[in-house]
Amino acid sequence: MDLNRNANLSMLCDYYELTMGNGYLARGMQDRITYFDVFFRKVPDEGGFAIAAGLEQVIEYIRQLHFNDEDIAYLRGRKMFSEDFLSYLRKFRFTGDIWAVPEGTPVFPREPLLTVRAPAIQAQLIETFLLLTLNHQSLIATKANRIVRAAAGRPVLEFGSRRAQGVDAAVDGARAAFIGGCKGTACTLSDELYGVPAGGTMAHSWVQMFGSEYDAFKAYCETYPDNPTLLVDTFNTLKSGVPNAIRVFNEVLRPRGLTKCGIRLDSGDMTYLTRKARQMLDEAGWQSCQISCSNSLDEYIIADILNQGAQIDLFGVGERLITARSEAVFGGVYKLTAVEDNDGTIIPKIKISENVGKITNPHFKKLYRFYGNDTGKAIADYLCVHDETVDDSHDLEIFDPAATWKRKTVYNFTARELLVPIFRGGKLVYQMPTLAEIQKYCAEQVDTLWDEVKRFDNPHTYYVDLSQKLWDIKNELLHTSSR
Amino acid sequence: MDLNRNANLSMLCDYYELTMGNGYLARGMQDRITYFDVFFRKVPDEGGFAIAAGLEQVIEYIRQLHFNDEDIAYLRGRKMFSEDFLSYLRKFRFTGDIWAVPEGTPVFPREPLLTVRAPAIQAQLIETFLLLTLNHQSLIATKANRIVRAAAGRPVLEFGSRRAQGVDAAVDGARAAFIGGCKGTACTLSDELYGVPAGGTMAHSWVQMFGSEYDAFKAYCETYPDNPTLLVDTFNTLKSGVPNAIRVFNEVLRPRGLTKCGIRLDSGDMTYLTRKARQMLDEAGWQSCQISCSNSLDEYIIADILNQGAQIDLFGVGERLITARSEAVFGGVYKLTAVEDNDGTIIPKIKISENVGKITNPHFKKLYRFYGNDTGKAIADYLCVHDETVDDSHDLEIFDPAATWKRKTVYNFTARELLVPIFRGGKLVYQMPTLAEIQKYCAEQVDTLWDEVKRFDNPHTYYVDLSQKLWDIKNELLHTSSR
Repeated sequence: MDLNRNANLSMLCDYYELTMGNGYLARGMQDRITYFDVFFRKVPDEGGFAIAAGLEQVIEYIRQLHFNDEDIAYLRGRKMFSEDFLSYLRKFRFTGDIWAVPEGTPVFPREPLLTVRAPAIQAQLIETFLLLTLNHQSLIATKANRIVRAAAGRPVLEFGSRRAQGVDAAVDGARAAFIGGCKGTACTLSDELYGVPAGGTMAHSWVQMFGSEYDAFKAYCETYPDNPTLLVDTFNTLKSGVPNAIRVFNEVLRPRGLTKCGIRLDSGDMTYLTRKARQMLDEAGWQSCQISCSNSLDEYIIADILNQGAQIDLFGVGERLITARSEAVFGGVYKLTAVEDNDGTIIPKIKISENVGKITNPHFKKLYRFYGNDTGKAIADYLCVHDETVDDSHDLEIFDPAATWKRKTVYNFTARELLVPIFRGGKLVYQMPTLAEIQKYCAEQVDTLWDEVKRFDNPHTYYVDLSQKLWDIKNELLHTSSR
Repeated sequence: MDLNRNANLSMLCDYYELTMGNGYLARGMQDRITYFDVFFRKVPDEGGFAIAAGLEQVIEYIRQLHFNDEDIAYLRGRKMFSEDFLSYLRKFRFTGDIWAVPEGTPVFPREPLLTVRAPAIQAQLIETFLLLTLNHQSLIATKANRIVRAAAGRPVLEFGSRRAQGVDAAVDGARAAFIGGCKGTACTLSDELYGVPAGGTMAHSWVQMFGSEYDAFKAYCETYPDNPTLLVDTFNTLKSGVPNAIRVFNEVLRPRGLTKCGIRLDSGDMTYLTRKARQMLDEAGWQSCQISCSNSLDEYIIADILNQGAQIDLFGVGERLITARSEAVFGGVYKLTAVEDNDGTIIPKIKISENVGKITNPHFKKLYRFYGNDTGKAIADYLCVHDETVDDSHDLEIFDPAATWKRKTVYNFTARELLVPIFRGGKLVYQMPTLAEIQKYCAEQVDTLWDEVKRFDNPHTYYVDLSQKLWDIKNELLHTSSR
């Protein structure tokens, strides 16, 4: 609908993917098999873990990847690309392999969320879209999960469309928030497209449109007598809003024997106002009336006001969720980890950096999560070379890759491979779960984390260890590559 | 391409727009003429002004606004809406009036960026899309303008697609960044769709794909001998990257008489590394080589490293621009300011709040900007009632609406109306400027602001005053509405 609605998202790539692709073709390197990992270096908000999300949109993108005549005409007009390359793009489709962690999985820094094995140009061209999609939805799912945990069992609704950073930020953001545990959204299109339950009642304008607040509330309750929620802060919450709500509930709902109803507060001191409102509602016999709040909330404010005894049954969270305002960037990167030579030998690659934290884990890898059989809790994640296999019927000694003298033996555990095949030879081999299944899986997996990892402040650092073989390869590359 | 590509953006509304619309229709209020203002309360990053952007996408949206059969079927399935309302939506189109400040205009808190006059349901249904579009693009244009000003004449390129909050955040974000003054983008699709110049050269993966950094640089320069930019930090910037770049420039460019080239640094201490690199390049006779940097930059870091003598010719700015990371929310709101009664009389409306800053400016208004005829500088903005006219051939006494004893007489000035007609009776009456024209207009208008307003820290608060008539109406409403 806006200008890019009919756009071809294959063109949503950084321009350098194209200059590199043209260069690889010019040098006959287009069929060189490359391996890339998507991983991140730091959990937003200093949290203990993130939630992976966005895979379904990556899958849709990969399936539709192509360059059309307009795209080729645009690229030809740039006068940088050979006709060979433009022909290559015209016939382009993705023929590689992709592995990924399922959406909703708790994930940790420096482990792959997704691995691509594909010819060089293909693997390069998909970089930008993969990163932006996984970064965006993982950012929002992670933030939503924090907020949902702060709400301690009370439903959280996503209300932020109007402050989202564009259409997808609203629509896909609501999807990601649902994965993270939100019960619903204000965004109608997210419901129509993805089945994220949408809801909403009235804005201040409804109240202003009538002769009085009482008239506005009465009109609303008469139109929606089944569970109406009235916005009580247009003029004065305690002196006008709550008394008018009670009067209208008494006049419209009570005679019909209806008891489900609610009030919403969108300004003022939430602790004070909700405690007073609760008291007024209870004294009027409206114990069934739910109180919802929606005023620039986040996980810290929610935890704080609940701790102070705020009487809130439901939270509507807007801008601070849909933009992850406190830390609006999920820093996923896409790094070359290996190439294949002509006989299929996999040659691991590393990127050195003056920042030690920016050094990559080389090679085509497997990612395991170890769960304790007695507790059901996640013990550690374990990265190894693709041809290694963990046998969880035996004890295993693991060690901290940055401090190798810190060693630990894991026993009585179950090892689960986190990276599952998504595409093989360009064909989708993954059965996509429903959104409700993803949400449920996410909640279950977050439950496998110890509380120490889930703390908002100073969480325990979860172990992401390397196998001895992978560690040795990395160490060797570090010493030989830093020329 | 992702699932919502063929979605109808008319459905990108908060669900409460629909419940209110259904309610207005049920009560016969659907044709009641309403006035809504879009305005914001606070400039992000404590800045002195914001840049309005996003109007073109609002226009596209309004022109295509409709509900299709799938939308109606979805809404019917929700079992909340009358068949009358669903029929109303099926025939829905926008028939109202819209005024807006042109894109690229510097704007200030509490003044309308856009005013809607339309039947109640129409005005309400467009709320979410208008807000999200104007909020998003104004946020990014404002941030880009800060970064561009910090770069003090050096070009700034937008490099953030991979960290953007979804597809539109990347594509429309690059457009907004261009309005704010960026010279180009890494986002290919923004070039194809909007004509934002896209550019880019190589990632670290290019360097890793070859047997050595030297081979990688040589291959690149042979493919793109006209102005190649080499990424020099894959292994070691000063010991490996810059020497290899110089060697390749000498071997590939010099024999052909080519001098345009560049290096890019993406990690490490920018001040130290660029000063050393500049020295090495100059000593090797490559004074023409441009140095670009792209490592988590923002306006503060850019100002700081330039102040320290960093030798940088061009900045690539990514995540901190495309997400406006330091303050990722532009808080535009959409508030009812008036309704018309049956004989067309305009009745002003106000929203009271316990937060004084949340109280709205009521009524259908005009917005003037006064420019001093001697300086060309903007003196003050002036909000008045729609039927008032400022005569700039006479002096005018203005006053601070919050401290009415603070008075000032403006003289020798030109008054310009900022809100221009966009739609009249649902018809587009606005000639859309090109993106390049918007960028140029933005730069010119920022030049009309005094330096005191443009400071990053503690900027001077620009005057946004009310006419006496408007102030009297607001004051009267404040005293009568707070029941």
